[in-house]
Amino acid sequence: MQLGMIGLGKMGANMAERLLNGGHKVTGFDPNAQARSGLEGKGGAAADSLPALVKALPTPRVLWMMVPSGKITDDTVDALMPLLDEGDTVIDGGNSNYKDSLRRAASCAGKGLNYVDCGTSGGVWGLAEGYSMMIGGDEKVVDALTPIFATLAPGKDKGWGRVGPVGSGHFTKMVHNGIEYGLMQAYAEGFSILQHKQEFALDLARVGEIWRYGSVVRSWLLDLTTDALNKNPTLEGIAPYVVDSGEGRWTVDEAIQLGVSAPVITLSLMERFRSRDADSFADKLLASMRNQFGGHAIKKE
Amino acid sequence: MQLGMIGLGKMGANMAERLLNGGHKVTGFDPNAQARSGLEGKGGAAADSLPALVKALPTPRVLWMMVPSGKITDDTVDALMPLLDEGDTVIDGGNSNYKDSLRRAASCAGKGLNYVDCGTSGGVWGLAEGYSMMIGGDEKVVDALTPIFATLAPGKDKGWGRVGPVGSGHFTKMVHNGIEYGLMQAYAEGFSILQHKQEFALDLARVGEIWRYGSVVRSWLLDLTTDALNKNPTLEGIAPYVVDSGEGRWTVDEAIQLGVSAPVITLSLMERFRSRDADSFADKLLASMRNQFGGHAIKKE
Amino acid sequence: MQLGMIGLGKMGANMAERLLNGGHKVTGFDPNAQARSGLEGKGGAAADSLPALVKALPTPRVLWMMVPSGKITDDTVDALMPLLDEGDTVIDGGNSNYKDSLRRAASCAGKGLNYVDCGTSGGVWGLAEGYSMMIGGDEKVVDALTPIFATLAPGKDKGWGRVGPVGSGHFTKMVHNGIEYGLMQAYAEGFSILQHKQEFALDLARVGEIWRYGSVVRSWLLDLTTDALNKNPTLEGIAPYVVDSGEGRWTVDEAIQLGVSAPVITLSLMERFRSRDADSFADKLLASMRNQFGGHAIKKE
Amino acid sequence: MQLGMIGLGKMGANMAERLLNGGHKVTGFDPNAQARSGLEGKGGAAADSLPALVKALPTPRVLWMMVPSGKITDDTVDALMPLLDEGDTVIDGGNSNYKDSLRRAASCAGKGLNYVDCGTSGGVWGLAEGYSMMIGGDEKVVDALTPIFATLAPGKDKGWGRVGPVGSGHFTKMVHNGIEYGLMQAYAEGFSILQHKQEFALDLARVGEIWRYGSVVRSWLLDLTTDALNKNPTLEGIAPYVVDSGEGRWTVDEAIQLGVSAPVITLSLMERFRSRDADSFADKLLASMRNQFGGHAIKKE
Repeated sequence: MQLGMIGLGKMGANMAERLLNGGHKVTGFDPNAQARSGLEGKGGAAADSLPALVKALPTPRVLWMMVPSGKITDDTVDALMPLLDEGDTVIDGGNSNYKDSLRRAASCAGKGLNYVDCGTSGGVWGLAEGYSMMIGGDEKVVDALTPIFATLAPGKDKGWGRVGPVGSGHFTKMVHNGIEYGLMQAYAEGFSILQHKQEFALDLARVGEIWRYGSVVRSWLLDLTTDALNKNPTLEGIAPYVVDSGEGRWTVDEAIQLGVSAPVITLSLMERFRSRDADSFADKLLASMRNQFGGHAIKKE
Repeated sequence: MQLGMIGLGKMGANMAERLLNGGHKVTGFDPNAQARSGLEGKGGAAADSLPALVKALPTPRVLWMMVPSGKITDDTVDALMPLLDEGDTVIDGGNSNYKDSLRRAASCAGKGLNYVDCGTSGGVWGLAEGYSMMIGGDEKVVDALTPIFATLAPGKDKGWGRVGPVGSGHFTKMVHNGIEYGLMQAYAEGFSILQHKQEFALDLARVGEIWRYGSVVRSWLLDLTTDALNKNPTLEGIAPYVVDSGEGRWTVDEAIQLGVSAPVITLSLMERFRSRDADSFADKLLASMRNQFGGHAIKKE
Repeated sequence: MQLGMIGLGKMGANMAERLLNGGHKVTGFDPNAQARSGLEGKGGAAADSLPALVKALPTPRVLWMMVPSGKITDDTVDALMPLLDEGDTVIDGGNSNYKDSLRRAASCAGKGLNYVDCGTSGGVWGLAEGYSMMIGGDEKVVDALTPIFATLAPGKDKGWGRVGPVGSGHFTKMVHNGIEYGLMQAYAEGFSILQHKQEFALDLARVGEIWRYGSVVRSWLLDLTTDALNKNPTLEGIAPYVVDSGEGRWTVDEAIQLGVSAPVITLSLMERFRSRDADSFADKLLASMRNQFGGHAIKKE
Repeated sequence: MQLGMIGLGKMGANMAERLLNGGHKVTGFDPNAQARSGLEGKGGAAADSLPALVKALPTPRVLWMMVPSGKITDDTVDALMPLLDEGDTVIDGGNSNYKDSLRRAASCAGKGLNYVDCGTSGGVWGLAEGYSMMIGGDEKVVDALTPIFATLAPGKDKGWGRVGPVGSGHFTKMVHNGIEYGLMQAYAEGFSILQHKQEFALDLARVGEIWRYGSVVRSWLLDLTTDALNKNPTLEGIAPYVVDSGEGRWTVDEAIQLGVSAPVITLSLMERFRSRDADSFADKLLASMRNQFGGHAIKKE
């Protein structure tokens, strides 16, 4: 198939390359000239504007957006809409909030455009191993895109699928990331307990290596964790500072809106907030309270 | 009544003073000479050894231990046992683990001695306001001590009582402290949210003051918290470092042994652990994992 | 002063009565005729429509809304705006989301109307004991309402105050309720641990009674809890089903938006969700997983 | 090598079979005659008492215990000690608490016996896929057992290893299970959120299937979870009742003793407690409190 890739950053460039390797034609657009020539070097074509990109594609057009969620995605959809024709398809492969995808899909539907939200997992490993894709959209529209998904995925029939109507793809990806937070925190706590048990002087990378085969906790995240520990056994030089990128918050918001208890996912998110607050007001207040009622000494800063 | 007070530290000295003010006779023992003369200055008598203390008391003797829990309490009970006579009563007013109290009571019972475990709350405020006392022991034994408890308590019939057999006093006090952890954490989180909402520039002490009257969250801890915020509105100079002194851990241990879910008490304890770990291994590992799968930048130390 | 009270339900009727007792003139409106005649019976006046209410008040008018948050509050503000004149003041004493209050205040400001958001705590006890009020609004506007707040509050200078600009009153009340969730959960867990320790056969009401005086955990919520346990020691007939009314959710949303860790408040909310899910899908899935990897038996429904 | 297997239950029988398939000689003991003849049917030998088993093995003997942790393990070690000779090795492959293993190892050392604690993961899948083994013990002793571990493991050099001195094997396995609790809970919460989003009518097994390839959350537990959902998409007939078998509790105990915050592992444990308490006292008390302060209706049982 032929496809227009909008956004040739880390993710978009890799996906375009995987598509090219799979025999598809890819024309890419990115405001950055270097990103465009990168794609040309891999055998793709490049357009230096959205109108040029749209013009370069045969109808019905297929456009895959791989741009930062939020305003840039909104701007891209807004810019595309007047350029496209009925029957064209816009795929958002980024990390959009599913409510935004529902809203954008409704706008596009008003102009006869198809909208597909594709939650994409796999990170920097996707180029080599394939991407896991959770897809929301009309059945016919998604079916027509099968060759693309089959190429991007880890296998023709593996790691991708339509999960429901528009919005459900990004919803499922959001929950995927919520789970990811919980899994990561569980490993982090476990290794931390091992690390604190100094009398056993445990080799954490060795433990991780053992767990990778045959154990109940084996997983891809464990593979990566073990790799990190092998490279840097004491995690020297790494700040205890953990960023969150939005989907965890959305998952908790959604749990609260649905009235579903999700303590582990929620705590995992809050532990990240905590990691970034080296001067916790709450803790200072607790220390003050203890001093107030019990005369307990306060540690000075 | 007449009573021997063992341990004249912050708590013991205050309790002795409140008893003296209430018309009781108190003979105190403490290895520290200054502590002993302090009691004499308040109108009490002092003994410079446990045998001397025991000798100074009329039979049946009443001895109140107000010493650090653990080894020192054990040593004190061991030293007392051979000195006492059948019918004498030993009260542990400290923060002992209830399992230790059960064990010590059994030892004492073997020698015909009465044992009473009295969980004592009130901190440095107890001298003026009275102590809340949760008492475990035989009904008759506790009844005979009524004049003492009635004086130490905030009121003759207020803030004290027998809650059950030996062990139940310290058990109840342990849970009291578990609740205390949860209450403190709830206030700390709430004030922290207020403090982070910079656009409203809230005066936290003023908010605390408002809440102290008529609100659902009014409490003695809130009074203290407001006082702390009045004195030091930005908590300047206070390290975000919160000590725990044991009862919180015991409460969680007990909850787990009983199979009772107690998430809030448990999390309050763990937040204190967290406050003392400025260089969290778990967080470093999380940052490493994110780098591994997503190529996300790691903050360097 | 003279004031129009909109909404004569449980809260509005009590507040009107407290104002009347304090020497103010109150004209009330409620769609329910019985509620209106109730106010007349207490010495107030009643209007049978919003226009009639507005007409009955001297300018500049003061209108206190005590209606359910959300749509009804919006409808009331919308209905009032065309009826009022520049310089009139609308107070929202209900449990509105502070973001809604900001929005409504902006609408009112566009028409020269003053808007005050007053977070009100005290529940059914407010009539007798006074209400705790956290007030947001322009300083001059709030100052002009002093006689009203001084009467509604537990004391002339106690339990009320302006905390900041419009929005900050409901924001502060929202966090108040978040803290309330945490406090309640801490007590509930503690009493649950006591209750599960069957070997001590603890009398929970008696324990609560002891803690009410002199202990670190004494509070108004403990007074109420003890009262509940006195009346119904085994909580017979009460379903383990805990409702939440919105402010807890908003507090957690806000914590997440601010990136503030608030594990105890959040868990308290989620425990309520859990209490209402007697057929947890998550737990069924956990039981299935255990069966899958370990062959562990599954309990059948 | 030749080895005596004590305990021919689900785990022991499978391990014996895997060893036989790998060319080792296994003599087994189990009080159950059927279990013994089962082993004989697989090509092993059986002894009908511990003395007979010991007698049947060449020196230095190697005995692998695969019996329930706690009293039965203690009884087995006690029974073995007088039967064995210096230089013999006892391996505990079960789920013992590492503190018990330290104690038993010390007893054995006093008699010149080697003790090895081997935490074993893999469940019912171990026979086919191999067991993950975390081994504690003296380096020389463990080295001498290499052929056995290499056969039981998923691969000659995969999924097994000495992690440290005696005790460290079961310690590591304990933490492994703590992590397992956290991972399971993270998945359970995520699938529960998906399941509650009824407007998307998500096919959970399909989602699981997609995630199994290329996604960040892919793991063996996800494979099993997806399998469970494929077989029983609505989890019909399964009670929301989740058992815990001890290691989770030990992990939390250890975290608390080390002062390490482990909120996710701890909450995962407590959620299991919660799943088994259909009539929560804490929730009843919360409902009572709400009624007390706000007059909120109580749901009746």
